[in-house]
Amino acid sequence: MESNSVSPMPELAPIAEFDKTPPTPPEDTLPMDDLPPPPNTVVNVQEEKEKEAEAEAKAHRHYEDENEWGCGSWLEYTVVVVCASILLLGSLALTLFWVIQYRGGFAWREDPAKEFNLHPVLMVAGFITFSGFSILLYRICRCCRRIYVKLLHTIFHALAIPCVAVGFLAVLDSHNLSNPPRPNFYSLHSWIGFVTMGLFALQFVVGFFSFLVLLCCEGATAGFRAALVPIHASFGLTTFMLAIAASLTGLTQKVWFVLGDGYSEWKEEGIIINSLAMALVALAILVSFAVRSPTLKGDTRMTVTERL
Amino acid sequence: MESNSVSPMPELAPIAEFDKTPPTPPEDTLPMDDLPPPPNTVVNVQEEKEKEAEAEAKAHRHYEDENEWGCGSWLEYTVVVVCASILLLGSLALTLFWVIQYRGGFAWREDPAKEFNLHPVLMVAGFITFSGFSILLYRICRCCRRIYVKLLHTIFHALAIPCVAVGFLAVLDSHNLSNPPRPNFYSLHSWIGFVTMGLFALQFVVGFFSFLVLLCCEGATAGFRAALVPIHASFGLTTFMLAIAASLTGLTQKVWFVLGDGYSEWKEEGIIINSLAMALVALAILVSFAVRSPTLKGDTRMTVTERL
Repeated sequence: MESNSVSPMPELAPIAEFDKTPPTPPEDTLPMDDLPPPPNTVVNVQEEKEKEAEAEAKAHRHYEDENEWGCGSWLEYTVVVVCASILLLGSLALTLFWVIQYRGGFAWREDPAKEFNLHPVLMVAGFITFSGFSILLYRICRCCRRIYVKLLHTIFHALAIPCVAVGFLAVLDSHNLSNPPRPNFYSLHSWIGFVTMGLFALQFVVGFFSFLVLLCCEGATAGFRAALVPIHASFGLTTFMLAIAASLTGLTQKVWFVLGDGYSEWKEEGIIINSLAMALVALAILVSFAVRSPTLKGDTRMTVTERL
Repeated sequence: MESNSVSPMPELAPIAEFDKTPPTPPEDTLPMDDLPPPPNTVVNVQEEKEKEAEAEAKAHRHYEDENEWGCGSWLEYTVVVVCASILLLGSLALTLFWVIQYRGGFAWREDPAKEFNLHPVLMVAGFITFSGFSILLYRICRCCRRIYVKLLHTIFHALAIPCVAVGFLAVLDSHNLSNPPRPNFYSLHSWIGFVTMGLFALQFVVGFFSFLVLLCCEGATAGFRAALVPIHASFGLTTFMLAIAASLTGLTQKVWFVLGDGYSEWKEEGIIINSLAMALVALAILVSFAVRSPTLKGDTRMTVTERL
């Protein structure tokens, strides 16, 4: 067990920020067992050995071994990973099914109504599926080194960018090419979408520079990066929640556009849109829980109290 | 400084759960300075004094005094408290202004349309204003004993219950008394509202029994209560976010009902509804940040690393 993995750190797996090789381990938080005995203390060899054994025992009490990860935790972990994957892929599949089956599929420019259909699919793919997997894998990936998890986190978010950009262009284009052209940016769905895109872009740029580029001068930036972790995590989850809120308002708007009063007659399309909305709500609850659950943290080497 | 205030605890101010008088302080997490020297070690009085001074210095390095709460933290604290209060009261005021100015005010039974107006006002009051203040004050109140903060947290949430109940009855009644009666529970707004009310009720009941009633056998339930804190906090924030999502879908629905295509003509009422929605979005961002910011924790006595 590395000595640096034992320091109780801030809220969001900040141990991870040091990539397990922190340049300046925070001395204050190291267990006092690791300190050498005061130089003036007179000890014989036997006593020193006893103290070493005692210190080792204490260290073991402090930090649970990976094998000690209990049955309940494994169950929780498996349930969260399986349910989240089903919901993340399921909501994308349901969106695809809805627009292909009920809204006539896709087109580009030649049919503004079908071009619009790219908007919900690409936004769900970018803001929900890719971003959701990215958040979850960063938080609960237990299999590989933190730097690879970081890179995967970046790649998944980077994959979301073209989806969001094309999804945004599709709705603009579809509005402008309609006959008569439909106005843009008046609805609260579009306002929420703007805030979400802004936060997403800010998070990506700040995250990319702080957690990847600044690794070039790892020692000097460790404190700054560690301080940024809870802020990045907090705003990341908020962005995901806002993306879900934007999707829900978008779906509400669309269902009234296309079904009108027929919505209250429990038409098939209405039920499918509602189911998609409920999948998004379930995702909001599950991802929020997974991100904050102490037992699902990616790094199992944490103090016992962090598990409480 | 009490010795029990020094243990690094789980994510959400769990120190608070022990009301600063934990019956079983987690021994593993106490700083090793506090342990007596190994009995076999031969030390003279002078050395012992030196070690005591050293231990004291270390303890001071470990834990910041309340006075050390920096200028930046105070600024952050003040900005969050002021902005959150403005937004929480402002969103209620804006809802009131909207329904009184543009929707004809309130009535009970004699005018279903005006009875409906109670729904947005009471739901915003209960789910946003009362719940929002309740969450915030629990998290960032720095002035009084934790048990009083807990009671205030419960009272604020309890105040939300009649608001939500009457708000729910108002919309049911208004739908049933309309001519022709309008159906219930078909829209995704109502489905999200159901999930939110269910989570709210669950949180209230579990929270009330676990964190207040179980205090009667404080010692035996400390571990259970501490384990429940991050789950209660996580689902509490999720309930607040879902309440905001429900409000946003409700506002989207209503604005299309009452303005129709006029919504795209930037009518005054549309802009007011959009502004209300943006206040709710700002609240989602701010409350989420306040709850997770390590510098805004109610109890300033935390390890230095928790501040990183």
